[in-house]
Amino acid sequence: MKYTELSALGEFGLIDHLTQTIKAKNASTLKGVGDDAAVLDYGNKKILVSTDMLIQGIHFDLTYTPLKHLGYKSVAVNASDIYAMNGTPKQITVAIAVSNHFSVESLEELYAGMYLACKEYGIDLVGGDTTSSKTGLCISITVLGEAEEKDIVYRNTAKENELICTTGDLGAAYMGLQLLEREKLVFQDTNQPQPDFAGYEYILERQLRPAARKDIVQLLKEKEIRPTAMIDISDGLASEIMHICKDSGVGCNIYEEKIPIDYQTYKMAEELNMNATVCALSGGEDYELLFTVPLDKYDILTALPGISVIGHTCKAAEGCRMTTRDGNSFELKAQGWTNFTPNNGQS
Amino acid sequence: MKYTELSALGEFGLIDHLTQTIKAKNASTLKGVGDDAAVLDYGNKKILVSTDMLIQGIHFDLTYTPLKHLGYKSVAVNASDIYAMNGTPKQITVAIAVSNHFSVESLEELYAGMYLACKEYGIDLVGGDTTSSKTGLCISITVLGEAEEKDIVYRNTAKENELICTTGDLGAAYMGLQLLEREKLVFQDTNQPQPDFAGYEYILERQLRPAARKDIVQLLKEKEIRPTAMIDISDGLASEIMHICKDSGVGCNIYEEKIPIDYQTYKMAEELNMNATVCALSGGEDYELLFTVPLDKYDILTALPGISVIGHTCKAAEGCRMTTRDGNSFELKAQGWTNFTPNNGQS
Repeated sequence: MKYTELSALGEFGLIDHLTQTIKAKNASTLKGVGDDAAVLDYGNKKILVSTDMLIQGIHFDLTYTPLKHLGYKSVAVNASDIYAMNGTPKQITVAIAVSNHFSVESLEELYAGMYLACKEYGIDLVGGDTTSSKTGLCISITVLGEAEEKDIVYRNTAKENELICTTGDLGAAYMGLQLLEREKLVFQDTNQPQPDFAGYEYILERQLRPAARKDIVQLLKEKEIRPTAMIDISDGLASEIMHICKDSGVGCNIYEEKIPIDYQTYKMAEELNMNATVCALSGGEDYELLFTVPLDKYDILTALPGISVIGHTCKAAEGCRMTTRDGNSFELKAQGWTNFTPNNGQS
Repeated sequence: MKYTELSALGEFGLIDHLTQTIKAKNASTLKGVGDDAAVLDYGNKKILVSTDMLIQGIHFDLTYTPLKHLGYKSVAVNASDIYAMNGTPKQITVAIAVSNHFSVESLEELYAGMYLACKEYGIDLVGGDTTSSKTGLCISITVLGEAEEKDIVYRNTAKENELICTTGDLGAAYMGLQLLEREKLVFQDTNQPQPDFAGYEYILERQLRPAARKDIVQLLKEKEIRPTAMIDISDGLASEIMHICKDSGVGCNIYEEKIPIDYQTYKMAEELNMNATVCALSGGEDYELLFTVPLDKYDILTALPGISVIGHTCKAAEGCRMTTRDGNSFELKAQGWTNFTPNNGQS
């Protein structure tokens, strides 16, 4: 039998490969695989569905991740997928597998974090499955949300010559992870009583307890701005921009100097001899929103807090490019989380 | 900090404990945790949602489980939860975590089995998440189904003096598992070229490739019989009967001689020095339906293929009891899968 390594396809290639033959059988299936969430038709409002799985040792390290934060994050990253469709999350189901090493109290902590996020985003936990595992913790959450059909924003509907916008700042979650990994190593090697996180509270919070941008979706609705395409930034800016461009049949040009990066991210990157722009492009886990809007919204958008215009779309033939601070232009590469590359340290 | 072992609560106790404080926030949440599926209100039809997680080394052993069968089973057990609400499964999302030891071809096999089950039950695969794990395979599936509100059958609505019915036969999946475990041991110890499954094809199929009872739900609809309460038998007959009784506030009396058990199940149990009735009561993974109906349906029901009347409900004060073949009566005990007891071999 043929044997193809998973890394030969990569995460996105693998999903495409395994799902390419799917044809919807039910009238209620409006949109299946291929966006932040599926879209189902069960009446006047449409239902959005999305699933995420978090695995110990891959997506989180319990050495430095408090279970309450992990619970919060696992719900927030799912809510983020619904906001990225311009919808409102409503229900989640939670499946967890834990080894016998966990105590009831530790699961209470995990659930306390999930309930906190549920409260913040107005979500009901409606079901799930709890089982044992031989090795550590596995959390799988499915979120259901709702939206009017006219409000739903897909990722394949960007047009040429539109503005590309991102919310918040990028690369911080990845730098927070690097800091945690560094302190973990230092901590293991010395008798230091406490790891040193002073001055880096923001990037730590970005890694351990990311927020979904409910506020931005509400803000855009208030200002009557409907993005033409939208996606949440879970795998790094480059990868997400290329999703929108590839699926919409357009190209793009973004400007390095316009990419919003926090001071702590710059500082940490400098300490670690890394390039902050590369962290924003490929770091992932920021859970900010990336969206496109028509050019004439420029003035309204730039006046809004928490939104940065970072470039524009163009013809597909021009490719997906970034203009650097020194005026050079180079082609973006989607690295994503490269989950199937061993020891990449952050997937 | 307090440390309570998970086994102190058990699976059902743990779920109750972690979810007891939930209060629904959304009008669209009709029924949350506590039945085979949650019930959501998004228009004329109601939506049913259920999640199951399957873990390598806990729920399946890849030594003897073909990936295609595993894919089929993982969808079928979810579909079963929707049928157990008297609904129709419509969509699933699939989250899987795999180690790098898996090949693309092996995942194709897994998905081929899932697609086969999707075809059989008319389900669309609408989304998911594919990620890596450090150790083996983890599959989490969420299924969405639909039903008219008046058709939905909960597990807490049985009345006193009703018939208790089960579909198909029970204990076979558990006996199939015991056979597979035995042959695995024999196979490891000797140079035998092939394990010996002759004469046991049925119980093997029941373990490896269980079917969800779509046919029974359709049959009951045709005959205009609406069960008063229903649940699917995933954890063994005793456990499921007690779910219905406890949640409905009734007791029950079932008759050992009425419990449908296949010849191969009896034969295998005899070979292994086990009691076939105990396997039916506590074995699990049969994915048959257990339901209650008013007494006056007796004649119609007993004329239907694939349905057995095994007893009746009574006052709660009389407890949940079984009358044995020799006329003794004893109290049922819900053992379930006891997922959190180490080395139980079948959870």
